[in-house]
Amino acid sequence: MAAEQDPEARAAARPLLTDLYQATMALGYWRAGRARDAAEFELFFRRCPFGGAFALAAGLRDCVRFLRAFRLRDADVQFLASVLPPDTDPAFFEHLRALDCSEVTVRALPEGSLAFPGVPLLQVSGPLLVVQLLETPLLCLVSYASLVATNAARLRLIAGPEKRLLEMGLRRAQGPDGGLTASTYSYLGGFDSSSNVLAGQLRGVPVAGTLAHSFVTSFSGSEVPPDPMLAPAAGEGPGVDLAAKAQVWLEQVCAHLGLGVQEPHPGERAAFVAYALAFPRAFQGLLDTYSVWRSGLPNFLAVALALGELGYRAVGVRLDSGDLLQQAQEIRKVFRAAAAQFQVPWLESVLIVVSNNIDEEALARLAQEGSEVNVIGIGTSVVTCPQQPSLGGVYKLVAVGGQPRMKLTEDPEKQTLPGSKAAFRLLGSDGSPLMDMLQLAEEPVPQAGQELRVWPPGAQEPCTVRPAQLCEPLPSLAESRALAQLSLSRLSPEHRRLRSPAQYQVVLSERLQALVNSLCAGQSP
Amino acid sequence: MAAEQDPEARAAARPLLTDLYQATMALGYWRAGRARDAAEFELFFRRCPFGGAFALAAGLRDCVRFLRAFRLRDADVQFLASVLPPDTDPAFFEHLRALDCSEVTVRALPEGSLAFPGVPLLQVSGPLLVVQLLETPLLCLVSYASLVATNAARLRLIAGPEKRLLEMGLRRAQGPDGGLTASTYSYLGGFDSSSNVLAGQLRGVPVAGTLAHSFVTSFSGSEVPPDPMLAPAAGEGPGVDLAAKAQVWLEQVCAHLGLGVQEPHPGERAAFVAYALAFPRAFQGLLDTYSVWRSGLPNFLAVALALGELGYRAVGVRLDSGDLLQQAQEIRKVFRAAAAQFQVPWLESVLIVVSNNIDEEALARLAQEGSEVNVIGIGTSVVTCPQQPSLGGVYKLVAVGGQPRMKLTEDPEKQTLPGSKAAFRLLGSDGSPLMDMLQLAEEPVPQAGQELRVWPPGAQEPCTVRPAQLCEPLPSLAESRALAQLSLSRLSPEHRRLRSPAQYQVVLSERLQALVNSLCAGQSP
Repeated sequence: MAAEQDPEARAAARPLLTDLYQATMALGYWRAGRARDAAEFELFFRRCPFGGAFALAAGLRDCVRFLRAFRLRDADVQFLASVLPPDTDPAFFEHLRALDCSEVTVRALPEGSLAFPGVPLLQVSGPLLVVQLLETPLLCLVSYASLVATNAARLRLIAGPEKRLLEMGLRRAQGPDGGLTASTYSYLGGFDSSSNVLAGQLRGVPVAGTLAHSFVTSFSGSEVPPDPMLAPAAGEGPGVDLAAKAQVWLEQVCAHLGLGVQEPHPGERAAFVAYALAFPRAFQGLLDTYSVWRSGLPNFLAVALALGELGYRAVGVRLDSGDLLQQAQEIRKVFRAAAAQFQVPWLESVLIVVSNNIDEEALARLAQEGSEVNVIGIGTSVVTCPQQPSLGGVYKLVAVGGQPRMKLTEDPEKQTLPGSKAAFRLLGSDGSPLMDMLQLAEEPVPQAGQELRVWPPGAQEPCTVRPAQLCEPLPSLAESRALAQLSLSRLSPEHRRLRSPAQYQVVLSERLQALVNSLCAGQSP
Repeated sequence: MAAEQDPEARAAARPLLTDLYQATMALGYWRAGRARDAAEFELFFRRCPFGGAFALAAGLRDCVRFLRAFRLRDADVQFLASVLPPDTDPAFFEHLRALDCSEVTVRALPEGSLAFPGVPLLQVSGPLLVVQLLETPLLCLVSYASLVATNAARLRLIAGPEKRLLEMGLRRAQGPDGGLTASTYSYLGGFDSSSNVLAGQLRGVPVAGTLAHSFVTSFSGSEVPPDPMLAPAAGEGPGVDLAAKAQVWLEQVCAHLGLGVQEPHPGERAAFVAYALAFPRAFQGLLDTYSVWRSGLPNFLAVALALGELGYRAVGVRLDSGDLLQQAQEIRKVFRAAAAQFQVPWLESVLIVVSNNIDEEALARLAQEGSEVNVIGIGTSVVTCPQQPSLGGVYKLVAVGGQPRMKLTEDPEKQTLPGSKAAFRLLGSDGSPLMDMLQLAEEPVPQAGQELRVWPPGAQEPCTVRPAQLCEPLPSLAESRALAQLSLSRLSPEHRRLRSPAQYQVVLSERLQALVNSLCAGQSP
């Protein structure tokens, strides 16, 4: 029942949503008497996605939900027992049964803030065994959420602030929860709405949608609606047979457009009338089921003008194929001419909605100066992040028993930075972030205006800068979304550009650099 | 409580996991008096993914689970009411409250069978309103499952039948359910096991895993285990201090390898000893935390030889960086030399497990003749399908009220095939599929040996072939997996090859072709 009452809980990750090696390592730690050693892990990524110089941090609220509910049930422990050695000490399983995250502390970048390579999105500390078990679910919850938020932010930067962006990729997502995650975090990243109803119900994302080709093709034109009458918008006066009224308008529209009155498909018109009867105040037409120019557009105009006579205003048309920009320009011309011809000025500003495999390049074209497109629906390319479908987040041990730890592999890219750390965003005089600085947690907090010596990664000598701290409480989804846009607006143009950007620096404090040097040289810290 | 008792139910999609336009169209149908019109939709894809000539059908069992549980709860209906026009007739919401899928029929390709463009994976018939509502969740459940199964099948074809393939991409998936779906369907597609424990618990996928770098770096070497003693494998005789025994072996191993005994990292060795104490019969070493040659390999050999003295056999080593093929060859040489030197023949055949961003190209190299790699762990490139992260599945209305329907858009790629159809796989004399044929459901079932005239899409004239029917009941996941491999083995080499394959034909029966022609010409069927 709890799951029914709290629909969010159903979507939450579960403790066994983890890699088996987390459980085998848990047994290893337990057997070595180290299950409760104090440990700290950092979750970060090594390179910004999509060839850009920024990412947005997201997924924190899912992590918090997961950690609060973390508890192995009897069936979970029994399953682990079935895949671990049969002679495993039963006391280990008793230890697992008693686990929760009450001793786990998580520090995090606020949802929607800018994130850069090497700077922890999460810093997770607590008993070694349990914080190890958390690795996979936390990566699973943070990596894709941050990736899709970043992807959405890029698309918003390309679209500019005016165009409305609708996420409609549920059918392309990696299963149900992939879809819910995509809808939530593309909104956080800057989209205006989603087609995903569940994201509206569970996460408060604004939902939007109209009609598909199947609705149009389902009508032949010979159907007889049970109630063809529509009352005027003002509520006064007798109802009107909308289909008959649209038929009258069709003749005028066809004459105006130079079309034969038989050309527009009667089934499409019947579908538009049916939709208008259900949504007289929100009528939209999908124009490209048969032929935009010879059927969809005249049918739309006939129904829209019939509605207009009753005091209603149609709100939009949608195109899902062909050259979307070009068609939008021509449709707007038709709207303007019809608005003048039939003296209905509102027709000029009917929204033009487009969709059909829109990627960054296509979006740039649709968003160019003078484009008549108003709303852009994006599915596959926001949800699946085809330019780079994974963030490559990692979760690395940085301290255990109060001692810093470092992976010193021969692959320098895979080396880690040791020790429990604090991160600071250093701002320039214009308020834009200059660089992030990582320092050891025990170092004094830097002060604004104070000169600091810092080490860019791999540098031979330090440079100097002035810091400002960033630290915010966990905000709501809408606040995170606002923070995302605010953060992006503060990023300098050379870091914000999406191709070949200037790389944003993440630098080390002198003491952290000294610790790295000493561990690399094999000295105890 | 139901959700707790049936853990599968928690992962199932829910009715509101749909695009809003399905709900707005539902209202449109209802207002037009057409909610209960008999309708049929087909779910199919238009192009095979990844540049290949085949796909595997998957996700059907998730669809069945979803359809069985389909029911709008009060909270769902209330949410829909909040996003639909405020003056919507309350009787519409009563209709929604009463909906279920008891009148919906689904015909499907069996899980794991070959699927080709235009051939329906699902044929869904029932009342128009409800089968329209099912579009998005069914696409969401089928498209990614089929995509990842196909991706896994490609990787299996590249790896050949001998190499063991481990899916380990949970942390790269699109959230929790993306990970569960990926693990389930990469197993169906031909992987041997998954790191995802939940996939083992809920879906019966074999799980596998050992240890991560964090386990190794968490040990400094100064830790004192509460019980350092290990009993012999046979259970007879006194226990032995494994760490002390490994230290003795280390000297012999270092002398054999020409290394100083101080070179191997003591923390790494302590981690291996801790792991071996927990898993004496399944000891594996992760070799590249510090240095494979100067630390990981000698530490592994010391612990493996100490275990060997007690009658245990180490099972494997893992490499996660560097040139994996080259290192595997050299490690095998070291194993052979050490097996001879220390007279432990089993050491020769210790498994070499590799991982680290392995894609199709890297896999081909690792699977080449003479490779000493035994197990290959693949994460990102199986789970996220970076070559093509979505299948592009569509769900199209083909009949309503017994009448065929067709989308006649000006974009020929987006045209649909009208009418309720049956699909047959036509086999050649060697048993391999020649082509699939779509015909109208009312046409007589073709007989083996009988000559048929069929129409390749866009052809000017028909060709002739001999058919054989394929029709199987819903199998278990393991059976589907076997079917997937069997199906692939029967596909001819020119269709099976992964790059620039010969395209597999999907052809139309004469009557279906005639119906297409008549609808294109604007004639009533």
